[in-house]
Amino acid sequence: MRDKIIYPFVAIVGQEKMKEGLILNVINPTLSGILIRGEKGTAKSTAVRALAEILPEIEVVANCPFQCHPGDKNLMCPPCRERLERGEEFEVERRKIRVIDLPISATEDRVVGTMDLEHALKKGEKRMEPGILAAAHRGILYVDEVNLLDDHVVDVLLDAAAMGVNTVEREGVSFTHPSRFILVGTMNPEEGELRPQLLDRFGLCVNIEGLRDPSLRVEIIKRRSKFDENPVAFVQGWEDESKKLVESIRQATELYSQQVEIDEAMLREIVHICLDVGVDGHRADIIMQKVARTICAYRRRKEVVREDVEYAAQFALPHRVRRRPFEEMAGNIEERLRKQ
Amino acid sequence: MRDKIIYPFVAIVGQEKMKEGLILNVINPTLSGILIRGEKGTAKSTAVRALAEILPEIEVVANCPFQCHPGDKNLMCPPCRERLERGEEFEVERRKIRVIDLPISATEDRVVGTMDLEHALKKGEKRMEPGILAAAHRGILYVDEVNLLDDHVVDVLLDAAAMGVNTVEREGVSFTHPSRFILVGTMNPEEGELRPQLLDRFGLCVNIEGLRDPSLRVEIIKRRSKFDENPVAFVQGWEDESKKLVESIRQATELYSQQVEIDEAMLREIVHICLDVGVDGHRADIIMQKVARTICAYRRRKEVVREDVEYAAQFALPHRVRRRPFEEMAGNIEERLRKQ
Amino acid sequence: MRDKIIYPFVAIVGQEKMKEGLILNVINPTLSGILIRGEKGTAKSTAVRALAEILPEIEVVANCPFQCHPGDKNLMCPPCRERLERGEEFEVERRKIRVIDLPISATEDRVVGTMDLEHALKKGEKRMEPGILAAAHRGILYVDEVNLLDDHVVDVLLDAAAMGVNTVEREGVSFTHPSRFILVGTMNPEEGELRPQLLDRFGLCVNIEGLRDPSLRVEIIKRRSKFDENPVAFVQGWEDESKKLVESIRQATELYSQQVEIDEAMLREIVHICLDVGVDGHRADIIMQKVARTICAYRRRKEVVREDVEYAAQFALPHRVRRRPFEEMAGNIEERLRKQ
Amino acid sequence: MRDKIIYPFVAIVGQEKMKEGLILNVINPTLSGILIRGEKGTAKSTAVRALAEILPEIEVVANCPFQCHPGDKNLMCPPCRERLERGEEFEVERRKIRVIDLPISATEDRVVGTMDLEHALKKGEKRMEPGILAAAHRGILYVDEVNLLDDHVVDVLLDAAAMGVNTVEREGVSFTHPSRFILVGTMNPEEGELRPQLLDRFGLCVNIEGLRDPSLRVEIIKRRSKFDENPVAFVQGWEDESKKLVESIRQATELYSQQVEIDEAMLREIVHICLDVGVDGHRADIIMQKVARTICAYRRRKEVVREDVEYAAQFALPHRVRRRPFEEMAGNIEERLRKQ
Amino acid sequence: MRDKIIYPFVAIVGQEKMKEGLILNVINPTLSGILIRGEKGTAKSTAVRALAEILPEIEVVANCPFQCHPGDKNLMCPPCRERLERGEEFEVERRKIRVIDLPISATEDRVVGTMDLEHALKKGEKRMEPGILAAAHRGILYVDEVNLLDDHVVDVLLDAAAMGVNTVEREGVSFTHPSRFILVGTMNPEEGELRPQLLDRFGLCVNIEGLRDPSLRVEIIKRRSKFDENPVAFVQGWEDESKKLVESIRQATELYSQQVEIDEAMLREIVHICLDVGVDGHRADIIMQKVARTICAYRRRKEVVREDVEYAAQFALPHRVRRRPFEEMAGNIEERLRKQ
Amino acid sequence: MRDKIIYPFVAIVGQEKMKEGLILNVINPTLSGILIRGEKGTAKSTAVRALAEILPEIEVVANCPFQCHPGDKNLMCPPCRERLERGEEFEVERRKIRVIDLPISATEDRVVGTMDLEHALKKGEKRMEPGILAAAHRGILYVDEVNLLDDHVVDVLLDAAAMGVNTVEREGVSFTHPSRFILVGTMNPEEGELRPQLLDRFGLCVNIEGLRDPSLRVEIIKRRSKFDENPVAFVQGWEDESKKLVESIRQATELYSQQVEIDEAMLREIVHICLDVGVDGHRADIIMQKVARTICAYRRRKEVVREDVEYAAQFALPHRVRRRPFEEMAGNIEERLRKQ
Repeated sequence: MRDKIIYPFVAIVGQEKMKEGLILNVINPTLSGILIRGEKGTAKSTAVRALAEILPEIEVVANCPFQCHPGDKNLMCPPCRERLERGEEFEVERRKIRVIDLPISATEDRVVGTMDLEHALKKGEKRMEPGILAAAHRGILYVDEVNLLDDHVVDVLLDAAAMGVNTVEREGVSFTHPSRFILVGTMNPEEGELRPQLLDRFGLCVNIEGLRDPSLRVEIIKRRSKFDENPVAFVQGWEDESKKLVESIRQATELYSQQVEIDEAMLREIVHICLDVGVDGHRADIIMQKVARTICAYRRRKEVVREDVEYAAQFALPHRVRRRPFEEMAGNIEERLRKQ
Repeated sequence: MRDKIIYPFVAIVGQEKMKEGLILNVINPTLSGILIRGEKGTAKSTAVRALAEILPEIEVVANCPFQCHPGDKNLMCPPCRERLERGEEFEVERRKIRVIDLPISATEDRVVGTMDLEHALKKGEKRMEPGILAAAHRGILYVDEVNLLDDHVVDVLLDAAAMGVNTVEREGVSFTHPSRFILVGTMNPEEGELRPQLLDRFGLCVNIEGLRDPSLRVEIIKRRSKFDENPVAFVQGWEDESKKLVESIRQATELYSQQVEIDEAMLREIVHICLDVGVDGHRADIIMQKVARTICAYRRRKEVVREDVEYAAQFALPHRVRRRPFEEMAGNIEERLRKQ
Repeated sequence: MRDKIIYPFVAIVGQEKMKEGLILNVINPTLSGILIRGEKGTAKSTAVRALAEILPEIEVVANCPFQCHPGDKNLMCPPCRERLERGEEFEVERRKIRVIDLPISATEDRVVGTMDLEHALKKGEKRMEPGILAAAHRGILYVDEVNLLDDHVVDVLLDAAAMGVNTVEREGVSFTHPSRFILVGTMNPEEGELRPQLLDRFGLCVNIEGLRDPSLRVEIIKRRSKFDENPVAFVQGWEDESKKLVESIRQATELYSQQVEIDEAMLREIVHICLDVGVDGHRADIIMQKVARTICAYRRRKEVVREDVEYAAQFALPHRVRRRPFEEMAGNIEERLRKQ
Repeated sequence: MRDKIIYPFVAIVGQEKMKEGLILNVINPTLSGILIRGEKGTAKSTAVRALAEILPEIEVVANCPFQCHPGDKNLMCPPCRERLERGEEFEVERRKIRVIDLPISATEDRVVGTMDLEHALKKGEKRMEPGILAAAHRGILYVDEVNLLDDHVVDVLLDAAAMGVNTVEREGVSFTHPSRFILVGTMNPEEGELRPQLLDRFGLCVNIEGLRDPSLRVEIIKRRSKFDENPVAFVQGWEDESKKLVESIRQATELYSQQVEIDEAMLREIVHICLDVGVDGHRADIIMQKVARTICAYRRRKEVVREDVEYAAQFALPHRVRRRPFEEMAGNIEERLRKQ
Repeated sequence: MRDKIIYPFVAIVGQEKMKEGLILNVINPTLSGILIRGEKGTAKSTAVRALAEILPEIEVVANCPFQCHPGDKNLMCPPCRERLERGEEFEVERRKIRVIDLPISATEDRVVGTMDLEHALKKGEKRMEPGILAAAHRGILYVDEVNLLDDHVVDVLLDAAAMGVNTVEREGVSFTHPSRFILVGTMNPEEGELRPQLLDRFGLCVNIEGLRDPSLRVEIIKRRSKFDENPVAFVQGWEDESKKLVESIRQATELYSQQVEIDEAMLREIVHICLDVGVDGHRADIIMQKVARTICAYRRRKEVVREDVEYAAQFALPHRVRRRPFEEMAGNIEERLRKQ
Repeated sequence: MRDKIIYPFVAIVGQEKMKEGLILNVINPTLSGILIRGEKGTAKSTAVRALAEILPEIEVVANCPFQCHPGDKNLMCPPCRERLERGEEFEVERRKIRVIDLPISATEDRVVGTMDLEHALKKGEKRMEPGILAAAHRGILYVDEVNLLDDHVVDVLLDAAAMGVNTVEREGVSFTHPSRFILVGTMNPEEGELRPQLLDRFGLCVNIEGLRDPSLRVEIIKRRSKFDENPVAFVQGWEDESKKLVESIRQATELYSQQVEIDEAMLREIVHICLDVGVDGHRADIIMQKVARTICAYRRRKEVVREDVEYAAQFALPHRVRRRPFEEMAGNIEERLRKQ
């Protein structure tokens, strides 16, 4: 029932920037996630699920609720680490990367985990019950309508995203486990904004809207109908494209971790763009540099060029420009870039 | 006491669009439900219950709270699926399609299901207690005054409607069961609107008002009085009509699943209508295409014509036009269609 | 202490419309209740209690909390029905019709019934505890200041009134019992209105105010003082009048159920009045026809005349006219009737 | 510690109307209480407690939490009534009339009574725990700042005051006991009004303010100082005055219950005053007649004269005049009376 | 850790009125406390704690949570009184007067006391757990930012302060114990006022602000630094001053209880001042007379003179003048006094 | 996982005032903490964590949840004190100074500690469970976005900070333990201010913003990238600088506790500055004197000079100036200082 066939990522018509923003986060998971802002009905949710579908499988410790990495001590929960230290062998499972949904009504308990009441009542001892942040480790955490979440929950979420760990403290027990995930939030700005403090903590941001080109819209209907009629055949028809994308991501990941350089001139360019459009603090500069290097890797180059920086600005700045309406901001960024 | 005699669907005077909208959803349950907007006292609730009354019975696994389909693995709850896989034989029951009411005061727990406290206390083990989404599987979920529901509950509802499954997560137990239902919501727009995000997720929408033609109104009183005096005789008097409708629905269902075609020109027409009236995203296009094909099947044709598309627009667009008062929208759609 | 002597219905000075509205509901319990709108201190509560006092006793199954009708399967709770089906004999009690008060602070649990905690704790099994809707079955449910009730509770109440059944669903147990009652609501419009959706579901409505005629007011004081001094003697003094009223009601009930006719011309008249004054939907037409026939029966006629229809309009329309202040509405209805 | 000496009622300087209003309620407990409206620091609370101090003792059934009257079946709780019916002898105690304070933070549970949790846990059976309405039976219920109470609690309170009984319904147990008390409410109108519905249910109302005459104010300080220095001696100094008042009350009570007459002319006068100043409903007329007769008895006359009626108007009308500021009302009433 | 050395009361620079207001309350505990209104950082809290430090020790019954006075039946809790009546000997402890803080987040339960859950669970019997009002008995109750407390809690507090007793009623148990304390409240009027009803119940009120004289401010820093460097030496340096103050208080207390007189002329003066500045009710007159007599005793005189009355006005009136801004009030009072 | 390498304090680019404010608090922990106000993304959190990293380790009693100082009775919890008094030997651990985060959603229970439910249920006796104030003892308590905390929690926090002790009172148990910590709060003033009462209780305050100098910004990116690439090497590269800072702090601490003098002229200067810029109360003077002496020690001088006072003003005054916007305040302070 859950093994439902998923619409292929590469078959999504248009919305290139959203797709590339997601891909960049997969290549470089330290980019701190992406916020997709835009109108309803624009395949945001489809894209996220579809991307996870084609990514390579990961190895996890069997039966561990925190999907611990069997080979990396830093990505293990305390019990697994203890087992490793005792020299135990792990049984290993291979699994797809998970997309975990954060329901709009999620409470803080549900997100960070809580005390296992049943266990406490039966055995008289405390035990933590993993929450959404445990389930999301090494996967994608998808938060639809992030602007409608309770502010406290958003805080907790972004803290975990920033630290890469989640600490549960309940009734005198404290438990810390790794929680590294790609955070994808979506929001319809017509239903209220996030406060700037929270916006700033999403690494990237893209604004999307429905396509206006009739041919593309017809194409959307056609592909959707074909998929609905025979999903298996449809997915097979896009398999080559999918494989190409997976390979590009694999290569970019490798390249990024080894040898992408950025020179002083490009750093100055980043700083000047940030100062020109007017952002608070220094997070924008730091992220933009990382995004530029990730774009560079994805384009199979080893040295960041001005084009990478300018493209990076479109992901790193729209949500960080100070106190002005969003559209204006976006315009501002593009104008700034054109001036050069 | 529950076996109360129900007013016949075919004896409802007027309100053709509401009736046809309901029928289209029965023919094609993937249309994502219907929202009926209109003034009080216009037989909305009667129509829904009456339609269910005449639909063919379904087969369910006996004693399963999720009314699992005895022959379709995808429409089974996990326990039934396990039994199927172990090769067990199911005892099968035949039953009318159910109309499940969602009370305005329903909590999230009541909708998605919750933990069975009694079982937990007695047996010391967790067990899920099915909620409204379990009861509604393979039936009709009727939500009167959907605009007065708690926003979280509406979200949960529409999520389940979109996915066709419901996942209950409580205190460390996660349970997923199929939940495919025809969602029928009603609302009186004088008492507040739904937010656009939610409106968009109802496949169809019709606006209705009381009839103004005195003869029709007299007819309404007469039929109602006759029904009140002798319901059994009244229902018998309409039996032929009912049977005809049932047969039409059966044939349309068959036709739709086999051979209704829509050509490129008609798809372009759909896209142009959507762009002209101004809708967000692409959901309108996709639904409108499906509605047009369902209308076509109901009219016993195999190829969608312009008339089907234009009629489909009246169901798929009224609630999706951007930021303008509803009446104006409706006018807008019709005007757009007249222009052609 | 509860066996307090009650002021006689027939001794209430003035307020004819309120009194007649109550009587019509007793004659024809399918009229869907009555809403009494008016200033404080106008004997609303006295009238309701007084009417119940003189009505004939009813037969109920002894010790059944749902006051099941010993002879009518449709007015029985499931356990009584089972007993009937097993062929058991019922012990029968005769009892006065009850007036059940719905306290302004009543919760939904109290109204629909809830789980019997004591039973659950002691016996470890679930059992429903009947609520106000069980107590009100076959009696009068009196809701003082209905406009100050919680909206959810009003909804639940009106749903039960409309369906004639109440369904309790708590922690996995579902229990349905008949709940047919005459709903009498009062409100002081100075303290806020009901929303139109709820107004529409009261069958009848009357507006009352204090009497302005000094002689009548003196009469009120005198009767009240006499009653306070010697209630027993006072009640005896009005016994003949009471008996006459009871007899009229009995005859009208019989007549109504057998042979009151309404012709096409009168139906057209009803529809025209409704269209002229402007009401939403068709409930007004249907109720007005019923009220007219009940009035006709109460006046010992077998055929509805224009006068019955016009008088019925005064009960069926004041709360259904669209979006205009109440006084104006009332004026409007009378003006409309005068025109003829 | 509780046996603190109380300032004598007769030693209170000025505030004649408040004092007389309290006395009238003691003479005739069916007057439905009194509302004292006025500025802070005007001895409202002192007066209430002081009056109770000098009233004759009452006889109660020993150890009954409802202070049942040992000789009057109508003033007994169900258990005492059962004992009476079984022919048991009651042990009788003599006690002062109690003044029960209703704390501003009182919940509905505290007021009406609730389930005895301890008993339920220990014995596994339900038992009611008496609330404030039980404690107040046959005494004075004093509600300071009644306008700051929760509306639901005020409703509950006034219902009990009107009915003379209190019914507790909790978890399937229903228990009714007599609750007849003199209700005394105070409020500072600067801190918000009661809604008219509630105002109307206090029988009497007086407006008070601090004295402006310097000699009286000096007298107040002197008496208070003397009392503070030697309360025993001070009380003794006023004993004769106190005894005279007690005797007057006793005689008036006797006279009222036997032979105070009011003729038609005086009733007409009452009605005309009510119509002139403009009140809602008929409660004002009925109360005013009772107040006039009580005043008449207190003045040792057997027939109500115009002066009694006019004085009664000053207690019965100030809070019932329709929708005008209070001062104006008061002026209005006096003006109306002067005209004659 | 709690035995921290406290800054000496006599070493506080300036703020004479606040210091004298506190001293007057110590001399005469029936003055009903003091409200200190003023800006932040003005040693309010230091002064209260420092004063308690130098007051003579009191004798209490050992191990009694209500610090019962071993020799005064009126200052005992019920259990101690029972022991006294049984002729038991008390073990007696000597203790400093306590300053009890009322935390801004205190609930009503915490203030009045509540049921001892542990005892109930273990022993199956109810027992009261003393609250803050028990701890404060015979001490000082210090409420910082009294205007930010929950209104209900303030009410409860002032009731206890006025009555000198606290009554706990929870789940059918009622327990009364003495609770006589000096109530000291502080507030910063920039953060909202108390409602007049509550203001009036503080006996005295002073307004304070920071000193503007540079030499005094330098003196404050110096003394504070010296104290921080060597608290023991600092305290010793002020010991003589402290002893003198203690002796003055002792003598004034004695004098007040024996022989301070106030003549008719001075009482008239008090009344005229109150009428001139315009206060509600009579509490101001009564308090002012007491304050004047306490001042007189503190100044070692036996007869109140005009100067005492005028100085008393500055403590008794600022918070009781009707509906005008505070500064204006203060000015008004002084102006009134100057006129003479 | 927690042993993550931390960015070095000395490698933070710019933000000298924030860094110095933190250092001053480390040198002199009686300065009552620091509030850092400023825009997002300015390394506030990094600075706090980084500073803790390089401070010398402390000695604590092993296994004591209150990190008691093994040699100082005043810094021990009651159980440790008892052990000390019984002459027990402590097992001693050396540990880094902890930075404790106060999560924005922290409840009062979590902050002050609460009852250990598990222990109570199992053993039937009460035991306190330490809260955040226990964990923070002898460390740094970091409150991000202090202006978004619940007001009650802020109060509790600042009370503990001021007293150096925390008292837990729950269900009749009272427990007091030392809680001395350096309080560091941050806030973004765009998201709302703290009320003045709370502002005043932070000893120091600095306003920070992002750097505008492009070279510095480039430097920030470079250092951050280098750190991300190879944290171990980066930290080693800054080790000499770190050691120098640690040594400076050590020397300043020693100097401050022994011999820093401030003369009368400088005290007058402090008072004049405070009066000129206009602050409430005297806390500003006292703190400013302490800050000036701490600055003096940090600059290795033994006598406070005008420059120290002026620099101290920049930490002690910005948040204490009366009722004017913050920027203006800051300007005001600098202007005042320039005038001299």
